[in-house]
Amino acid sequence: MNNTKRYNILRVRGDKISKDEDIVIKEYKLTIFVNGDEMTSLLCIPDSLENLVIGYLYSENYIRSISQIKSMEIDEGIGRAYIDLHDECDNIEKENIFSQNSKTQKIRNQKQIEIQEKTKFKINAIRELVNQFNKNSKLFTNTGGVHSCALCSLDDIMIFKEDIGRHNAVDKVLGQALKEKIDTRNKIILTSGRISTEILTKVSRREIAIIVSISAVTDEAIEMAKELNITLIGFARGEKMNIYSGFPSLKI
Amino acid sequence: MNNTKRYNILRVRGDKISKDEDIVIKEYKLTIFVNGDEMTSLLCIPDSLENLVIGYLYSENYIRSISQIKSMEIDEGIGRAYIDLHDECDNIEKENIFSQNSKTQKIRNQKQIEIQEKTKFKINAIRELVNQFNKNSKLFTNTGGVHSCALCSLDDIMIFKEDIGRHNAVDKVLGQALKEKIDTRNKIILTSGRISTEILTKVSRREIAIIVSISAVTDEAIEMAKELNITLIGFARGEKMNIYSGFPSLKI
Repeated sequence: MNNTKRYNILRVRGDKISKDEDIVIKEYKLTIFVNGDEMTSLLCIPDSLENLVIGYLYSENYIRSISQIKSMEIDEGIGRAYIDLHDECDNIEKENIFSQNSKTQKIRNQKQIEIQEKTKFKINAIRELVNQFNKNSKLFTNTGGVHSCALCSLDDIMIFKEDIGRHNAVDKVLGQALKEKIDTRNKIILTSGRISTEILTKVSRREIAIIVSISAVTDEAIEMAKELNITLIGFARGEKMNIYSGFPSLKI
Repeated sequence: MNNTKRYNILRVRGDKISKDEDIVIKEYKLTIFVNGDEMTSLLCIPDSLENLVIGYLYSENYIRSISQIKSMEIDEGIGRAYIDLHDECDNIEKENIFSQNSKTQKIRNQKQIEIQEKTKFKINAIRELVNQFNKNSKLFTNTGGVHSCALCSLDDIMIFKEDIGRHNAVDKVLGQALKEKIDTRNKIILTSGRISTEILTKVSRREIAIIVSISAVTDEAIEMAKELNITLIGFARGEKMNIYSGFPSLKI
């Protein structure tokens, strides 16, 4: 399915108004059913839907490995994903599935994973990754309407995904990492979106040591990053960046 | 309650790494209880919470007038809002309260309000409003972490609100408009965030004729705007803007 659509528009530039065509990002609703029950609906772009579903279930702690998924069927036409999980899913996960309302509160209660060993990095390595990251997004260049997320080693982008939702972009990346059995420890997450506790929770569950945003971070994300020994970087733009936690022994 | 917090950070600029202080946006969780039942939790900034709650209930069609709220109590310390609604709330609203899961689907089913009379405007009037709008956000200037929304007449900004969530910013504006009994017809909504169907639905319910975003719009928002005769403008930046629907008889 295509992620964009063309529309006839009026383009205003200074004193000129002209009829023109514009490329617009698609908005797509995917409703997720687990073991026959409707769980949630995600507003997304119709791309990497399998990664999105796997990543969502994984990030929200409904599954811990890909083998817990018995079957998955995505009906793109009507925007529905049907997932059957194996019975051996433990209680925490079952509880999660059946109590959506207090989900946010649960995040805080669940055991967080503290980063044990600091990953050393050079500022210039992060700059180079951010540079690559910004060049990667053709969809953003075309439509200006998406967020990007990438999983990186210290010197390369391994997975790159986009979505209209910043949460979805992160889930797509983590979903593909799970499918490909990539060890996410000692890796870096880059995101174009603001880092709140919701995003940091998804990322910290994968024991990712370094998180970098092109835009802002929130106070609660800083507090959580300090607790968990995560290096949190914001406003990584050109020669600039702000390091909010996990101050490393830095080299340019 | 303050919307920002100061943190000691490492600031990287070119080859220089220095210890410095940064102002960071606060992340605050407000849980809304209606008639004793937990309805939802909003991730927001701790500002204009009463407007946010009223606007949320209004935008999501749980209330149609301020008089339907019997009482409201906000406990800022623990982040909870307790609302009692009068019994005369009709069935649609009650149904809404008790079936959160299929909320998005409902939006589509609910009767939409078509704009009857085209509001005429000049391109330069919109430019001037956007210009004012961009200057208004001190919080964005300080933290880079918020979205803004404004309700405007054809020549002035009437209400201006900010939040970490673009939905919340819109709800705060509409909540204050309801409290102040402002007629929202023939008004303009400006937003810094992407216009999706969720945002357009909130705005269209108030019969607002013109919606302008500094950033992108989605395909589904364009389709909905065309159906409802709403003028939808995106990428309003400096001398530029794209008009996606409701092509008016334009004057610069």
